[in-house]
Amino acid sequence: MADKLRLGVLVSGSGTNLQSIINACEAGKIDAEVAVVISNRAEAFGLERARKHGIPALHIPVGRNETPEYEIADREQTRALRDHGVGLVCMAGYLRKAGPSVLETFAGAVMNIHPALLPAFPGVKVQWAAVEYGVRISGCTVHFADPEFDRGPIIIQAAVPVLQEDDGEALAKRILQCEHRIYPQAIQWFVAGRLSLDGRHVFVDDARAGSWRDGALFSPALELDL
Amino acid sequence: MADKLRLGVLVSGSGTNLQSIINACEAGKIDAEVAVVISNRAEAFGLERARKHGIPALHIPVGRNETPEYEIADREQTRALRDHGVGLVCMAGYLRKAGPSVLETFAGAVMNIHPALLPAFPGVKVQWAAVEYGVRISGCTVHFADPEFDRGPIIIQAAVPVLQEDDGEALAKRILQCEHRIYPQAIQWFVAGRLSLDGRHVFVDDARAGSWRDGALFSPALELDL
Repeated sequence: MADKLRLGVLVSGSGTNLQSIINACEAGKIDAEVAVVISNRAEAFGLERARKHGIPALHIPVGRNETPEYEIADREQTRALRDHGVGLVCMAGYLRKAGPSVLETFAGAVMNIHPALLPAFPGVKVQWAAVEYGVRISGCTVHFADPEFDRGPIIIQAAVPVLQEDDGEALAKRILQCEHRIYPQAIQWFVAGRLSLDGRHVFVDDARAGSWRDGALFSPALELDL
Repeated sequence: MADKLRLGVLVSGSGTNLQSIINACEAGKIDAEVAVVISNRAEAFGLERARKHGIPALHIPVGRNETPEYEIADREQTRALRDHGVGLVCMAGYLRKAGPSVLETFAGAVMNIHPALLPAFPGVKVQWAAVEYGVRISGCTVHFADPEFDRGPIIIQAAVPVLQEDDGEALAKRILQCEHRIYPQAIQWFVAGRLSLDGRHVFVDDARAGSWRDGALFSPALELDL
């Protein structure tokens, strides 16, 4: 156990992606363990989920981006992540930018998940924006975080149909099911040392082309049974 | 034959989408006929394709967008399309905007195809841009044209994986195979009177959710055997 990679997960809300990561770790599908969960909101249910699994759960308030309070929180997060021996930071429904201290300390080891096919629909409430725009296909993206919001190098994406009767909530639900598959998959590739970076291109060693499962297209192909 | 809907196709280049439309018409998969093909470039191979099928092929030079020459060409296109009894205008690899006269005369009846999953990657050389960005999934879009480039209401999209070894050309080829399926499908829906518009939402009457074929996700589902 002691030599497993330790994950630090940043959340702001209910933490269903956190839960899928915890489950995949506990089931041995991800060869790592969640060492600490940090939320910028005290009432985030993600903290509760962590505690139920005996995982240290911290509330670190974060100010608005680029305020002094934000910078203090960035350093406090960095210290907490380091104290818990974290080797990979996973933003999971975390509604702030990763700060410069976190990004520097965990260079090349900070991931984020976004509920759209980036570069389409960056930002927030993007499932609603996709329905409003009238796209026929949307999806989700796991990418390495960089100082720009929703811009870092892409590891894996999944695409799903947008149905004519969808509202934002229905689409969000369909996309979420894919999120719960691609995030653990991306993390396990990292854990297995199969990710390398060339500029903004991520290479997944020995990856297969897209796969199809339960009405969604995954690229690269999913390998884990998630 | 006389009461079939008549298509006017605008091209700038080799016209493989034009060919897929001609083929689908000749095979009876689209219940319409190509009445005229217009190119802004005299040497466009699309004109040659039209002539081989006995379809009138016109060269109408078009200046840069929003010049006097462009406006004259817009009116000349409109006249030619009207003279040939066109009921639906299909831009197929046409590298200019549809002009105000064409858009007004054929309101709600001008389509375009774009080799990316709009709103991601508008513009030109977008398959190369997608590879450069590092997306894992791209595709193509058929949409109604409006005065904005690549912004009109979306009828159908298809998504394909971007492979790690892809260059722009390899991706363009994979996307093109989907273009040749979704464009005839969108046209046939129009011909069958199954498309209606509500703001920027296109409703396809009786459409089914996404379908999967030869490694691509189609949404709404393809119905024609293309």
